[in-house]
Amino acid sequence: MYKERLQRVLSKMKENNLKQVLVLDPESIWYLTGYQNEPMERFYALYLRDDGNHIMFLNKLFPAPDTDLQCLWFSDTDDYIGLLASKVDGDETLGVDKEMRARFLVPLMKLCPDCDIVLASDCVDDVRACKDDGEREYIGKLSSIDDKVMQAAEGFIKEGVTEAEVAQMILDEYKKYGHDSDIILPSVAFGPNAADPHHKTDSTVIKEGDCVLIDTGSKKKLYASDMTRTFFYKKAGDKQREVYETVRQANEIAEKMVKPGVKLCDLDKAARDHITNAGYGEYFTHRLGHFIGLNVHEKGDVSSASEIIAQPGMIFSIEPGVYIPDEFGVRIEDIVLVTEDGCKILNSYTKELKVLG
Amino acid sequence: MYKERLQRVLSKMKENNLKQVLVLDPESIWYLTGYQNEPMERFYALYLRDDGNHIMFLNKLFPAPDTDLQCLWFSDTDDYIGLLASKVDGDETLGVDKEMRARFLVPLMKLCPDCDIVLASDCVDDVRACKDDGEREYIGKLSSIDDKVMQAAEGFIKEGVTEAEVAQMILDEYKKYGHDSDIILPSVAFGPNAADPHHKTDSTVIKEGDCVLIDTGSKKKLYASDMTRTFFYKKAGDKQREVYETVRQANEIAEKMVKPGVKLCDLDKAARDHITNAGYGEYFTHRLGHFIGLNVHEKGDVSSASEIIAQPGMIFSIEPGVYIPDEFGVRIEDIVLVTEDGCKILNSYTKELKVLG
Repeated sequence: MYKERLQRVLSKMKENNLKQVLVLDPESIWYLTGYQNEPMERFYALYLRDDGNHIMFLNKLFPAPDTDLQCLWFSDTDDYIGLLASKVDGDETLGVDKEMRARFLVPLMKLCPDCDIVLASDCVDDVRACKDDGEREYIGKLSSIDDKVMQAAEGFIKEGVTEAEVAQMILDEYKKYGHDSDIILPSVAFGPNAADPHHKTDSTVIKEGDCVLIDTGSKKKLYASDMTRTFFYKKAGDKQREVYETVRQANEIAEKMVKPGVKLCDLDKAARDHITNAGYGEYFTHRLGHFIGLNVHEKGDVSSASEIIAQPGMIFSIEPGVYIPDEFGVRIEDIVLVTEDGCKILNSYTKELKVLG
Repeated sequence: MYKERLQRVLSKMKENNLKQVLVLDPESIWYLTGYQNEPMERFYALYLRDDGNHIMFLNKLFPAPDTDLQCLWFSDTDDYIGLLASKVDGDETLGVDKEMRARFLVPLMKLCPDCDIVLASDCVDDVRACKDDGEREYIGKLSSIDDKVMQAAEGFIKEGVTEAEVAQMILDEYKKYGHDSDIILPSVAFGPNAADPHHKTDSTVIKEGDCVLIDTGSKKKLYASDMTRTFFYKKAGDKQREVYETVRQANEIAEKMVKPGVKLCDLDKAARDHITNAGYGEYFTHRLGHFIGLNVHEKGDVSSASEIIAQPGMIFSIEPGVYIPDEFGVRIEDIVLVTEDGCKILNSYTKELKVLG
């Protein structure tokens, strides 16, 4: 599996006329080698070469990887950038990871002044974007758990409950499924809080007529999921109902269009046009969605500027939202998988308008 | 306060002949402006100029700062690197933050090909390293809480307890002091686990004769603390006692040397020599300490390679350790503050050898 992924990255390098690429994102290195490591502030890289002589650069404080790749070990006090520079072909273009920090990149550039530096993480990210069968199945499972947790969260909504209590209940619920660490904090917002993009879940108590926006998701075995539903508590006014149905339709219109070949900006446009035609365009203040995988936000946008063409294996969110300042907010988010002939919506929890309590 | 900090940074820039510096570390921007923001993958920068015409670069999705500084706002689809390049003086050296990612730095370099790029976060980090009065007091308070939590943790150690249970009890204990989020997971290791640098706190059950290594700390209002003690359960063998006393002495020898003017590598050497003379040098596998402040690991080392000279206001850890593979590990860590005429040890919890249970 790792060899096949490496091969796909090498093909991308060839397409981009790159003979050498430096990968630093720990998730990408895990994806390509199976070796998991959290380098914190320390240097950690996988140097890929078109001739197959790849090298891993490892601090002696890291655990030893189980790999056939050549490993070069260094300690905190060694000149590891000098070591790296001695291996890089200084006359060739060097592709670097978008995550590479200046603390490593600037001294490398001083040591390799003739090396043309270009961003090259697309070579890895584009491969990561198209999930293989195991990944599709795994993220699908995580999304099914999100459905179950959302069901439980719905049951938590009752007189006197606070946002923070609902968030804590959701965390406890995930623990039942073995999500014991690396969990993503759910975002729970009642009423006007749901319209404030900077709101942090707090001790706000639920009130009759509030919207209840729950954005949840988990991270397990390095993979992430993401999902949002919006409910109403005790009653929903006409405007709330109108906005809800508009957002739900926008979500469904975009999801119906997902299949190989569709341009992702066209999904954003379809959802946005629908919301604009209903008179709420100015309140849909973010992109329609984002790619997801080893990270909740992976490289890849579903936005008005996204020229990406859907391909089988891509997994991204479809999450239109309308936020009426000082009143309420509605967002409905599913994770979708582009299949060979269409799309699989990985969340199956209902999107019908629900008035709770 | 923020103006005075900015002024200190501008002086550092002058010392380094820098007319322009780009700060990207959100903690540094908070430190210099009071504005707290988590940009995630988005561009976010404070551009400092020697003529005082500083500029904040902000995504429209960020909250509005309360600041006198000029703010330039952009959206996800705007050419914000082009905007940045239009403000940078392309004929002058540009100092950049060590945390700046290639995704922003590489396109900026293409737009400013004649700009010499150098690392310049030292201009901010060196100012951050010397804490002002409020910071000293605050980190002192956090360390006192660590002392109390360590006292409680000692009481948790009993027949049948697991590492994970102790860690959870510690987290619960911190909550009593209002550390409700951003908490740092305590590391709890029993017996041979304490000698494995890659061990993660797990469901290992305590056994008679185990060492009990507890590395804890908290984060509150952006500041961090850090502390380690090692106990023994039911009994301590001769080797364990010898190693413990060696590590304790190394800790105390180094702490006694701390005062303005001392070179930090000399602290490391004194502690390391003591451990080496006792025959355990090869098992002291890490640096003696690290700076701490807005981050548990801030820029600044207490290591054999550290040329830093102690100055009033610096806060760092003194944490010698000896790890005997497959047997046990001992680490004793305090946070110390360099005062005007010596040193204040911010942790006061006993370092006497304790056999619990």
